[in-house]
Amino acid sequence: MEFMQNKKHIYLSGTFNQTQNTTQNSSFDTVPICSASIEDAVNLIRQIAPDTQIETRYIDEADGYTLGAPVFCRYDIPGFDRSTKDGFAVRAEDTKDATPENPIRLTFSGSIKNGYSPSHILTKGSCMGITTGGALPNGSDAVVMLEYACFKETYVEIYCPVVPGDNVIRKDEDAKAGEIIFPEGKILRPQDIGVLAGFGICTVQVRAMPVIGILSTGPELVPADGRPKRGEVRETNSYLISALCRKLGALPKRYGIAWEGMADLSNMLCTAVSECDAIIISGGSAHDERDRTAEVISHYGSILLSGMSISPRKKMVIGAIRGKPIIGLPGHPASVYLLLLLVVSNLIQAMKGSVTQGLLKEHAIAGDDMKAHPDREYHIPVRIDNGYVFSLSRKAGLVSLLTHCDGIVHIPQGSRGVKKGEQVEVMDLTMIRSPFHIHPHDQYDAKLY
Amino acid sequence: MEFMQNKKHIYLSGTFNQTQNTTQNSSFDTVPICSASIEDAVNLIRQIAPDTQIETRYIDEADGYTLGAPVFCRYDIPGFDRSTKDGFAVRAEDTKDATPENPIRLTFSGSIKNGYSPSHILTKGSCMGITTGGALPNGSDAVVMLEYACFKETYVEIYCPVVPGDNVIRKDEDAKAGEIIFPEGKILRPQDIGVLAGFGICTVQVRAMPVIGILSTGPELVPADGRPKRGEVRETNSYLISALCRKLGALPKRYGIAWEGMADLSNMLCTAVSECDAIIISGGSAHDERDRTAEVISHYGSILLSGMSISPRKKMVIGAIRGKPIIGLPGHPASVYLLLLLVVSNLIQAMKGSVTQGLLKEHAIAGDDMKAHPDREYHIPVRIDNGYVFSLSRKAGLVSLLTHCDGIVHIPQGSRGVKKGEQVEVMDLTMIRSPFHIHPHDQYDAKLY
Repeated sequence: MEFMQNKKHIYLSGTFNQTQNTTQNSSFDTVPICSASIEDAVNLIRQIAPDTQIETRYIDEADGYTLGAPVFCRYDIPGFDRSTKDGFAVRAEDTKDATPENPIRLTFSGSIKNGYSPSHILTKGSCMGITTGGALPNGSDAVVMLEYACFKETYVEIYCPVVPGDNVIRKDEDAKAGEIIFPEGKILRPQDIGVLAGFGICTVQVRAMPVIGILSTGPELVPADGRPKRGEVRETNSYLISALCRKLGALPKRYGIAWEGMADLSNMLCTAVSECDAIIISGGSAHDERDRTAEVISHYGSILLSGMSISPRKKMVIGAIRGKPIIGLPGHPASVYLLLLLVVSNLIQAMKGSVTQGLLKEHAIAGDDMKAHPDREYHIPVRIDNGYVFSLSRKAGLVSLLTHCDGIVHIPQGSRGVKKGEQVEVMDLTMIRSPFHIHPHDQYDAKLY
Repeated sequence: MEFMQNKKHIYLSGTFNQTQNTTQNSSFDTVPICSASIEDAVNLIRQIAPDTQIETRYIDEADGYTLGAPVFCRYDIPGFDRSTKDGFAVRAEDTKDATPENPIRLTFSGSIKNGYSPSHILTKGSCMGITTGGALPNGSDAVVMLEYACFKETYVEIYCPVVPGDNVIRKDEDAKAGEIIFPEGKILRPQDIGVLAGFGICTVQVRAMPVIGILSTGPELVPADGRPKRGEVRETNSYLISALCRKLGALPKRYGIAWEGMADLSNMLCTAVSECDAIIISGGSAHDERDRTAEVISHYGSILLSGMSISPRKKMVIGAIRGKPIIGLPGHPASVYLLLLLVVSNLIQAMKGSVTQGLLKEHAIAGDDMKAHPDREYHIPVRIDNGYVFSLSRKAGLVSLLTHCDGIVHIPQGSRGVKKGEQVEVMDLTMIRSPFHIHPHDQYDAKLY
């Protein structure tokens, strides 16, 4: 219970805390990590993440899913030698002496219609008209482009030599039968769906989307469409978490706000555990609320991590109940957002069996000084402008911070920060950021940098 | 009809073309653009793109939609002065002489519970306990952090002075009533959904998703789950186009394959025009097929653009039937993919009223020479590796090219290409590419560059 024993907490319990004393609690069965880095949290979450079921999906409904098994090619693709140009199918050796001055004459043996298998066998000294995509007749091994030939009704003049394979896609050049096309763990994208269709694979084995239960706690919360009185605030986090879960390929399931302390939260959590694959609880901003989350988790399961060594300080609890990960996040939307990006993204990836870890990072130049204390790691919300990053206000309580944040700059523990002009790494919020850049004046030329 | 008159076409009509002669056609009512750049095509497509209807959506189902009207803030947010720290609400002027050696003593007037409006008015010389997110009592204008104070039951010692506003979010610091939060044309992202919830805006006016009809033509096509005979290929494009339309925020509607020439294509197209907002026809790779698409469009409406000056040559037709854009694309999936990224993305953006144009670009270093002829513009598929881009095979007939392509490098008309080591711009395929980088060995540290 070491994590409960920090001075501040005891101090607060003794003074402000009018509700039940949360330090009395003895059901922990493991010693939780107390001063974790983000990396610790990610490692832990990946360890405890349960795999979702494998299901079969039609490729048309599989975009964004992770493959639960490798995909093998069942046939040679394209399956026949195919022309890549409009021109004439030839035997390459027939053309070896062709020059513009002394063209070779080849007998014209008709044209190949796309979609049909040419029955004609190309004999020495002859050629056939072919269009892009057409099947080469047996006997031919190259295509002379239209531009290097001249059609003369019964024969064709060839001005340039070709070698076997010129302007041809070999019958197994796209893929060979038996070859692995995509490995297990690959996330399918639209272009991959196209490839699967082209290879005749119309169903795939994928990991089911994890179902993420979402609970909010805090006596100061009112529903987003409610009317807060002075001191109350609108419940924001469940909307943010839901939308982000969907973007990350999970199914959010909302359970509402637990207003009335332990009993309320316990009931909700038990229901959620029985219905979901993992649960996210975003806490009220008050200390007693945060601790209540930890207490309920430890009552039904165990706390595995509590307390982070990142700045600004974020209260995060990771636990497990009946093998299902439970993540307790702080109350401020900006803090919730950061921990979703840094930690929860990994939970969802791991549950889906994705081989990828975390979100993309890019390089940029610091547009201002970003100071840091070497004792802690920092994750600084920044605005990205023309290749430079500028740190944003660190008031995590501002909801609008969410929308102004283009990226997150990581300053590792041990660093005193970065100076203006130095190169930094920015976490790419692409999947969060719109794929389209907002530069209405940059007609067709929008740039990230 | 100038675009039909190029030498190659006439040559082909006279030799291979066993179907009806496609140059006899007199229903064009405008003179189409014949040798267009991508920019010409984008400008045209943006001119003819019809806006979709405005609809009301619950924010929970609005991620990815484009705002059809600006969103105004209806209340001051957060609506009351709010503490950003755990500590003591004070009158700043009471603390001005505080030092660690000579702390100021303030009378402790109780604590503020989060979610409640403090009725107590803070009088000179007193303070109240407050936690992060709590409402400041009337009379107080700053918060002293817990770390700079010591609680002594009836009074509190303050070791540092604060000025008004310290550790406080002002009642309208997030947003002021009447302020525009998001402009018309903004694409909503998960973090924006969070902001809307936090600001008490639970429904928004958005543009409906455009419905895109998808047709394929070509006698060589068999359905993706069919068994192609020699010379036949699987129909790939409708899957690729569907998945990409969804990713771009449009609703695909598939109409299948028009095998049997004009009548079949005409019937399908008429149905699609009556049911969709725009139509994409991907053509067979044979010339007569491509021209058939143009002919059908011009029969029912008009051709506005035909022929591109890009390399490798892509046959693209843009027309309109009853005010609905019709785009004829080539047959090769890789060519279709490129034109979807470059042109169709703009169509969908424009129909949704998005202020953004085209896809993101990033900087990278050419990993090899990319030669170009100054007469044409090039869009070269590349692999991105550690900040370098390497050009991929330009055999557009390879289906697997789709999945190996991380980005597209644009070489404008007039350029002779780029040399290894030079900086280039890469079109970001982020929304196409998975948001997660495939570097299993880079634990938590996956990088784009």
